[in-house]
Amino acid sequence: MTGWSSITAVDTHDIRFPTSRELDGSDAMNPDPDYSAAYVVLRTDDPDGHEGHGFAFTIGRGNDVQTAAIGALRPYLIGRPVSATLADLGGLWRELVHDSQLRWLGPEKGVMHMAIGAVVNALWDLAAKRAGLPLWRLLSRMSPEELVDLVDFRYLTDALTRDEALEILRQGVPGRAEREAEILRDGYPAYTTSPGWLGYDDDKLRRLCREAVDDGFTQIKLKVGADLDDDRRRLRIARDECGPDIRIAVDANQRWDVPDAIAWVGALSPYEIWWVEEPTSPDDVLGHAAIAKAIAPIRVATGEHVQNRIVFKQLLQLGGLSFLQIDAARVAGVNENIAILLLAAKFGVPVCPHAGGVGLCELVQHLSMFDYVAVSRSQQDRTIEYVDHLHEHFADPAVVRGGRYRAPTAPGFSSTMLPASLAAYSHIELP
Amino acid sequence: MTGWSSITAVDTHDIRFPTSRELDGSDAMNPDPDYSAAYVVLRTDDPDGHEGHGFAFTIGRGNDVQTAAIGALRPYLIGRPVSATLADLGGLWRELVHDSQLRWLGPEKGVMHMAIGAVVNALWDLAAKRAGLPLWRLLSRMSPEELVDLVDFRYLTDALTRDEALEILRQGVPGRAEREAEILRDGYPAYTTSPGWLGYDDDKLRRLCREAVDDGFTQIKLKVGADLDDDRRRLRIARDECGPDIRIAVDANQRWDVPDAIAWVGALSPYEIWWVEEPTSPDDVLGHAAIAKAIAPIRVATGEHVQNRIVFKQLLQLGGLSFLQIDAARVAGVNENIAILLLAAKFGVPVCPHAGGVGLCELVQHLSMFDYVAVSRSQQDRTIEYVDHLHEHFADPAVVRGGRYRAPTAPGFSSTMLPASLAAYSHIELP
Repeated sequence: MTGWSSITAVDTHDIRFPTSRELDGSDAMNPDPDYSAAYVVLRTDDPDGHEGHGFAFTIGRGNDVQTAAIGALRPYLIGRPVSATLADLGGLWRELVHDSQLRWLGPEKGVMHMAIGAVVNALWDLAAKRAGLPLWRLLSRMSPEELVDLVDFRYLTDALTRDEALEILRQGVPGRAEREAEILRDGYPAYTTSPGWLGYDDDKLRRLCREAVDDGFTQIKLKVGADLDDDRRRLRIARDECGPDIRIAVDANQRWDVPDAIAWVGALSPYEIWWVEEPTSPDDVLGHAAIAKAIAPIRVATGEHVQNRIVFKQLLQLGGLSFLQIDAARVAGVNENIAILLLAAKFGVPVCPHAGGVGLCELVQHLSMFDYVAVSRSQQDRTIEYVDHLHEHFADPAVVRGGRYRAPTAPGFSSTMLPASLAAYSHIELP
Repeated sequence: MTGWSSITAVDTHDIRFPTSRELDGSDAMNPDPDYSAAYVVLRTDDPDGHEGHGFAFTIGRGNDVQTAAIGALRPYLIGRPVSATLADLGGLWRELVHDSQLRWLGPEKGVMHMAIGAVVNALWDLAAKRAGLPLWRLLSRMSPEELVDLVDFRYLTDALTRDEALEILRQGVPGRAEREAEILRDGYPAYTTSPGWLGYDDDKLRRLCREAVDDGFTQIKLKVGADLDDDRRRLRIARDECGPDIRIAVDANQRWDVPDAIAWVGALSPYEIWWVEEPTSPDDVLGHAAIAKAIAPIRVATGEHVQNRIVFKQLLQLGGLSFLQIDAARVAGVNENIAILLLAAKFGVPVCPHAGGVGLCELVQHLSMFDYVAVSRSQQDRTIEYVDHLHEHFADPAVVRGGRYRAPTAPGFSSTMLPASLAAYSHIELP
């Protein structure tokens, strides 16, 4: 690589994996998600030929808007020197997130924030490829000072200062090599959501529960919230099939208001629930705290729709969650997720990432492995969601065996989709 | 009008005014805004020829993304029957906001939520034009039952139920006609931000303060947060020029972390500050509450960047604000703002709308006037922001005289921009 190369192209792709391409826009209430990616490829004129790949995950309609938002960042990137940019990704993050005009479109939330996340993650992919390391190992080799320089502490200092973050990271320096070797050998715990989709009948639920246990998973998750009697029956079936030693979490996907959540979870409390996920709106910090207090000792998990570090800060300050579910593509990329990992460490809350969708398993495994090596140094009650679909479209797919994510070893962020998949699933808007 | 007409076109315009040249609108976080509108025109095949106009307000870059997001709603609107749609705007609101796929892009925040707001407001403009009434009078004639049907109480019921909202509105039925006549005669209180932009020198500040008092305003607002000595000097100048009877509010535009806000406002406390606006991130409910407690008796105002009714609910529950600043184009339109007006009434907090920008004065006056006639029934400590620019681009511009907004009387939502302005300020992306 040379010191003088620059970013020459920001290519975007509207990628959708639909069973219903012909129905786009014609069925406004279609409840089936079309897993999609607003995908970006950064190219440079460096002779090394490396590209940076990143994406925002959506579930179909609006993926064109998300893709346009990524494209709108082109002027901030084209012509930028590669080495200097990658050497100060904290600086670039601040420049994009605090751009006074773009900021008006959030601030720090929704479409524009996810667009910045896609670009930031693509830059990290490029950095890791250039370093010849998988991202989790690249991050795990950075000094505490380098890591805190990646983080924007704006709006966090009443809960976490730069000095406190430095101290957390310095405590994690001893033993990094041992923990990295442990991850390479043993991987990282996973749980599976595959048995639990609401659309499955009882026989399929029973069969998938058995398979999950046979595959070595020690935690599964069921969707709840549509019908209380169904939820009770499905929880009984799952517990019967899994036995007493498997953790069973439930996920309401924001279905309830605060009083409904408290009543519904109360009705499910005989079934030994490991956590209740997304009981209400991800914006409702006070609501989460009220629910958490009312349903204890059952605990609350949330995060896949939490818009940024500022809302996570408050959920932690108020005890609104007991499991923090980062998402690799919801907030503004690796940098903001490092801030969130540090907040979780400060408050002593385990991070159990959201995954599934398109490529979310591929990305987020790097963040949990880095968390173990350099931040939390614990796998206690920590586990990454796993859903077994769409991995075949990635050059370096996530691999789960024996209920554990195997450590990615290829250089990069595992975010590169196969060229054939990009071509085959590019969305074309019908007139 | 016929009963069988339908929506035939959703035209969008990327409109930008080069306001950064004069530093109008400059503050501690927004040094060079180019006031912009992602503008939408709904057309129908009804022989009455009425159009519905609406927009999202932005400050420049990214207005193309915002415009694309509005365009993405086209399939939800084209072909929809006009009369039936306008007769159930609560139903349309739920359909757009809770669309399972679009929802992923928020949920209920940022670019996609503002796009829905622009469309919902355009539909209200169309409804009011067809009714031959300015929007505030159309809303003021709806029954309590019709009004609560416009509101989505999802995620609100721990603070405000449909029945409680009905009761608030029923209490406001007696005297509606008198209050409507009072608004038509006397208008509604305004305050001015014109003197206070950070980019103005002391002489201009002094002159504009004098003009504000001469023009009949009883409240002004200064931007603060960039430099403490400057803030002190400017507050002294403003107090000298305005005298002791004029309320002086200050606006930090989210500049501070929580500890900084407390310290900075403490240093400004000798200057008799009416409110401190946006002391920190609009996402930080707990932060606002901590600041409000620490700086009392100085009070907190916020809202122009508050993403939705759920965050307003929490700010009210926790006492994080004493003045609630709705924005007509940030949340999902009239319907969500009615929810927020009802929340404010429930908690007894005065609503003092954010305005300025492009067309925000034009829109939000309707909401405050409706609030007075049918919801809060009070003008005590209530006042709408006024900034004297860009009104000349509107067909029915906001008029402030003697420190009061005059009641709009033309049918519609005052949202229609002149065709010549749409043509002259359409943004063309240079390659």
